[in-house]
Amino acid sequence: MSAPTARDLRALLGDDAVASGSIRHYLGDETEGRGVLGRADAVCLPHDAEQVAAVVSWCYERGVPIVPRGGGTGYTGGAVPIEGGVVVSLERIARVRSFDPLLWRIHVEAGVRTADLRRIVRESGLYFPPDPGAAEQSEIGGNIATNAGGPHAFKYGVTGSWVTGLEAVLPPGELVRVGGAIRKDVSGYDLKSVLIGSEGTLGIVTAAWLRLIPAPEVSLPVAGFYRDTASGAGAIAAVLGNGIAAAALEYLDAGTLAAALATYPGELPDDPRFLVIAEADGSAPEAQRVHAELREALAEDAAAIHAPDSPAEVAALWRWRHGVSIAVTAQRGGKVSEDIVVPVDRLGEAIERTLEIGARYDLSTCSWGHAGDGNLHSTFMVDANDDAELARAHAASEELFALAVELGGSISGEHGIGWVKRDQLARQWPPRLLELHAAVKDAFDPKGLMNPGKKR
Amino acid sequence: MSAPTARDLRALLGDDAVASGSIRHYLGDETEGRGVLGRADAVCLPHDAEQVAAVVSWCYERGVPIVPRGGGTGYTGGAVPIEGGVVVSLERIARVRSFDPLLWRIHVEAGVRTADLRRIVRESGLYFPPDPGAAEQSEIGGNIATNAGGPHAFKYGVTGSWVTGLEAVLPPGELVRVGGAIRKDVSGYDLKSVLIGSEGTLGIVTAAWLRLIPAPEVSLPVAGFYRDTASGAGAIAAVLGNGIAAAALEYLDAGTLAAALATYPGELPDDPRFLVIAEADGSAPEAQRVHAELREALAEDAAAIHAPDSPAEVAALWRWRHGVSIAVTAQRGGKVSEDIVVPVDRLGEAIERTLEIGARYDLSTCSWGHAGDGNLHSTFMVDANDDAELARAHAASEELFALAVELGGSISGEHGIGWVKRDQLARQWPPRLLELHAAVKDAFDPKGLMNPGKKR
Repeated sequence: MSAPTARDLRALLGDDAVASGSIRHYLGDETEGRGVLGRADAVCLPHDAEQVAAVVSWCYERGVPIVPRGGGTGYTGGAVPIEGGVVVSLERIARVRSFDPLLWRIHVEAGVRTADLRRIVRESGLYFPPDPGAAEQSEIGGNIATNAGGPHAFKYGVTGSWVTGLEAVLPPGELVRVGGAIRKDVSGYDLKSVLIGSEGTLGIVTAAWLRLIPAPEVSLPVAGFYRDTASGAGAIAAVLGNGIAAAALEYLDAGTLAAALATYPGELPDDPRFLVIAEADGSAPEAQRVHAELREALAEDAAAIHAPDSPAEVAALWRWRHGVSIAVTAQRGGKVSEDIVVPVDRLGEAIERTLEIGARYDLSTCSWGHAGDGNLHSTFMVDANDDAELARAHAASEELFALAVELGGSISGEHGIGWVKRDQLARQWPPRLLELHAAVKDAFDPKGLMNPGKKR
Repeated sequence: MSAPTARDLRALLGDDAVASGSIRHYLGDETEGRGVLGRADAVCLPHDAEQVAAVVSWCYERGVPIVPRGGGTGYTGGAVPIEGGVVVSLERIARVRSFDPLLWRIHVEAGVRTADLRRIVRESGLYFPPDPGAAEQSEIGGNIATNAGGPHAFKYGVTGSWVTGLEAVLPPGELVRVGGAIRKDVSGYDLKSVLIGSEGTLGIVTAAWLRLIPAPEVSLPVAGFYRDTASGAGAIAAVLGNGIAAAALEYLDAGTLAAALATYPGELPDDPRFLVIAEADGSAPEAQRVHAELREALAEDAAAIHAPDSPAEVAALWRWRHGVSIAVTAQRGGKVSEDIVVPVDRLGEAIERTLEIGARYDLSTCSWGHAGDGNLHSTFMVDANDDAELARAHAASEELFALAVELGGSISGEHGIGWVKRDQLARQWPPRLLELHAAVKDAFDPKGLMNPGKKR
């Protein structure tokens, strides 16, 4: 179907809605660093939701696979067209349809970039809390499709917590709306939540209604450096145990620090082996109150405390934190990174056992992540051209999934299943739930053409 | 199947797990005030989740309808056994399985009463925010099955926002777990959210893992009385427009005040026609800061402001607020009350048009509710023995549903569809979503035996 597909789609949508020239950009995501790359028969760049419906309809009639694509910043190959077919990029469907700052809500199209969305609402004194790592590149539609998280999910919840309505194209090519500019809805089964995190395997999100909150006046992070994992895990437990309502509660282990500390925007103690970043936010007095509590809780066993307080220094710390993933990749050129979740009391154990697993497979290993949510980014640093090393890393990943399940957790907290975790869900879910999972897929997408091979 | 059913279930579960004597208590809920009452072949009172699985399995094999029951405080007939069959009450499955105050989480069985849950965690300095009206009677399992709300859902979200995991019995009788003591999970499709709010039509929730937050130190409500709806709606808009992060934002209209003001725990102005209750919470200084802002925003057009500040007075105000529903019922002995949702900027219009609809059907009409969430309890006060009046009220309700949909809202914000709103979802959802709704039901409950006739 290869050559005819692009020509036919040009006839359907107009020349400018189908990519010409190199489509290489649309064939991969962050999993290129672990050797994943797809192939596509055509790449569509529709201008509006109706064109998305037209493409889905066209493909659905002809049995052509459809692979929705946001910013391409995923870690699971969710946007990679593994089995060919048509990539549908939402990048041009990126208008703010309406913004009602006095009503704390915004209606945006899927292609709006996450950081732009956050800036737009912030200019009106409002806050859209989800802050996944690649917010400058990621698109809100992709964030919804993966139910993206980020550091501030600890206090504010993941992307789905902020979605009050979705517009989506569902097979065989129908544009539907579920929810809207409303804050509560218990009418039908929660199909909105089924679409959120479905990774483009049930339909294509084209727009969303989002709720917002008044922006915190200030954000005051505290960074605590520790000599070992146990001391750092103790500091995390102290924040929770003292009932301190932190906005974020992050950790970075020794291997992560080794990769990333060179650019740390502050003074460092000798040989730090563990870092905890907690943040207080709110009105200035409230943030200062919580900040003082956090500082005390983190100081107990710390080798050093770093508490930036100017907006520029605070921004620099978070910019550094968001760059950690890239710094880790830079160590060996690639990485195999999983985002397992454990009950928060098992966090220290999961960090240590990540290292043990890596050591067993002779891999450079580290982890960092959202400590308060028990969400680790357990990572094996690899050379993506070294097939033997990649194979060891993939085998080690399977042990990570087993570890998460053994500790009562999940194989994915915010990245999703995508392609690289296919067939892993059975570790976590009993047969009856897997059966229901398949039945939901079948109801939405009876021909199995939506992002085939993913989320299963 | 009537007589044999109870005998067989006694043989299966033991004598004490099947109700003997009058089962009248288990045949109705709050919809008795609008003439709804069921009949049952047996009422089971299982002692644990395994017994629930045994009942479901027994019924499923034999084609016997299964009607799960929590505290029986619903407004939609969701717990009423309309088509007979076996009522499964969760009241005895009411243990706290584990409580980890230092980790902000609790694992409870479905029969734990909402108010007890809130008290238990509060004693350890933690907060479970959902506060539906009948919290002393309602059970957490029922709250989950309806995704119950309440005044503080405005700041903190509805029940589902706090559920990190569910244990449930799914047809044909399997005990499964989805999620757990974890705060993030994007592994499979969000079947946890599908079960939340499914009103017992997909399975029976037997236990839940809930996340908690540090309790606000103080709660400071402000009540503003107004001369008319427009002034009151203006005050609500002022709270939002000034970006004041209220914990709750409630309203009561003139008819509601006429029914309930006699017991108001504070001084009243002459002839108040609209009441707004907003609340500030948090640490003492933070609550006081927000409280001052709320007071200023509400004062603008107010006839009077009442700002209780002692814990006893604050509790009295909320106790009064939670009693409003009963006071309205007491007017004529019964009521037909719907919980429609509209975008918050349409709230004033929805309040006025509720009155117009009621007037057209010659009904005593009022509304109150969760203003900040655009969630109205639009209510026709009736004599449940007056069939003609009941019929008018039901016809008027259909107009309320049409109004909600016309304004871009939902036919239910927190009560669910149950029995009384059956066949109304088609007003709100397009055919493709209704088809998916039916497919989800069919996947979970292929024989259609779980709470038949409800949520459709």
